[in-house]
Amino acid sequence: MTPPGVHVHPSALAETDRIGEGTRIWAFAHVLPGAVVGRDCNIGDHCYVESGAVIGDGVTIKNGVMVWDGVTLEDGVFVGPGAIFTNDLRPRSPRGGDAGDRYAGDAWLTPTVVGRGATIGAGAVILSGLRIGDHAMVGAGAIVTREVPRHALVVGNPARVRGWVCACGHRLADRGADCPDCGSRSDG
Amino acid sequence: MTPPGVHVHPSALAETDRIGEGTRIWAFAHVLPGAVVGRDCNIGDHCYVESGAVIGDGVTIKNGVMVWDGVTLEDGVFVGPGAIFTNDLRPRSPRGGDAGDRYAGDAWLTPTVVGRGATIGAGAVILSGLRIGDHAMVGAGAIVTREVPRHALVVGNPARVRGWVCACGHRLADRGADCPDCGSRSDG
Amino acid sequence: MTPPGVHVHPSALAETDRIGEGTRIWAFAHVLPGAVVGRDCNIGDHCYVESGAVIGDGVTIKNGVMVWDGVTLEDGVFVGPGAIFTNDLRPRSPRGGDAGDRYAGDAWLTPTVVGRGATIGAGAVILSGLRIGDHAMVGAGAIVTREVPRHALVVGNPARVRGWVCACGHRLADRGADCPDCGSRSDG
Repeated sequence: MTPPGVHVHPSALAETDRIGEGTRIWAFAHVLPGAVVGRDCNIGDHCYVESGAVIGDGVTIKNGVMVWDGVTLEDGVFVGPGAIFTNDLRPRSPRGGDAGDRYAGDAWLTPTVVGRGATIGAGAVILSGLRIGDHAMVGAGAIVTREVPRHALVVGNPARVRGWVCACGHRLADRGADCPDCGSRSDG
Repeated sequence: MTPPGVHVHPSALAETDRIGEGTRIWAFAHVLPGAVVGRDCNIGDHCYVESGAVIGDGVTIKNGVMVWDGVTLEDGVFVGPGAIFTNDLRPRSPRGGDAGDRYAGDAWLTPTVVGRGATIGAGAVILSGLRIGDHAMVGAGAIVTREVPRHALVVGNPARVRGWVCACGHRLADRGADCPDCGSRSDG
Repeated sequence: MTPPGVHVHPSALAETDRIGEGTRIWAFAHVLPGAVVGRDCNIGDHCYVESGAVIGDGVTIKNGVMVWDGVTLEDGVFVGPGAIFTNDLRPRSPRGGDAGDRYAGDAWLTPTVVGRGATIGAGAVILSGLRIGDHAMVGAGAIVTREVPRHALVVGNPARVRGWVCACGHRLADRGADCPDCGSRSDG
């Protein structure tokens, strides 16, 4: 079932036929049927990609990350180790009797989009129903509860904007400044 | 060894004979001998349930969660992805020589109880020796260092009460308000 | 390839020949070629130890921890469940085109050292390029962005010093106080 040109570690489970050429999936990772993964991605050990997740090209996902149904990672995104996505703003156990009705359909499912070239830092938690702007950088351990503007650096719990970064990851003096390395501007 | 009516993914390890009917255990999960798991639970990929852990009925445990010895999850609990329990308030390596004496017995082990129908948000960390009240909702990324009252919503690092929720997960205007959906009251 | 006197769970992958006697590696863990692991360590389920990581003797690593290239854990360290190390202060996807040049060499790699007998609490996140001092205690869920002094207790996001602990893990009244249990002093 694995498409040609895709590397799947012998201990990993890759159950979708929609994985682009050059993508590598590492040990004990699990990609479910119906997940979409682009070309030249790297999906680390112990990751989980659910049916309904959409991952673009050139995406790097470090170990232990779960990409749920409703989560879209655009091209060139970096997701740090142990970063956590969500897709339900007020989860309850569907099996507990009190909240089971909510889970009869999929109205509970709230999507998340991470824009092109953005970084989600290690151990960050991303609440659902929002967009992380292109080339944004979510700091390690940040808890993201609001939209993140393009090229913004956000840190803290809850995460707040503390600066601006260019496409290559340099901190910029101001919003709209040019990056000496890559030439991109934070207001892009 | 797997009891009848229990689904264990071929890559998972279920080593206890105390798992209730209708429970499903997913890929690369590991349930140890002596763990107790109720009926109709869902234990996600890459989870770990240690000997001594006690899990009630209808509990949903999302991926990558470890339920340690000393942790009790009552019926209908939801544990979000990557949420972290603990059972030792001042851990040191038992192998390092300086603190080995503490680990000769089990006096170091501090229990945690999550009450019926409560939610532990994604990536939350729960210090040991406390109770999360029934139907409480611990927000994503919260670091819980104190008891959480029944029906309380707590967020932040350290986690503090920011509101009240009903059994079905609705935010309520005030403690003691009725929920228009499920009819439960936060002081229930 | 597993050295004598090392226990590797049948589902784990231990690909280095540099593991000391008495060390145990548990289910679904993955230790890569070139990693160095000392004697009498315990590496929990779902852990990952990368080529270039260096782990001393008597180290306890709870489940789901990734020890990257550039990370050194000295003797007797305790790493709590789901704690997260990093090795890149401004990560971008090397596959995205905008930042690929940074990853041509290894100048992006920033080392981290955790000193002898220190504790990294559950779910803590450690930014790279810093040292956690000997016998320090990083609280659960702390986000560490600065050096941590020896014997310091740090908590919060970002982590700040809130007290002092001895080698055995006791809280001390003051920096420099003696511990009644182990006799060590926080200024060591």
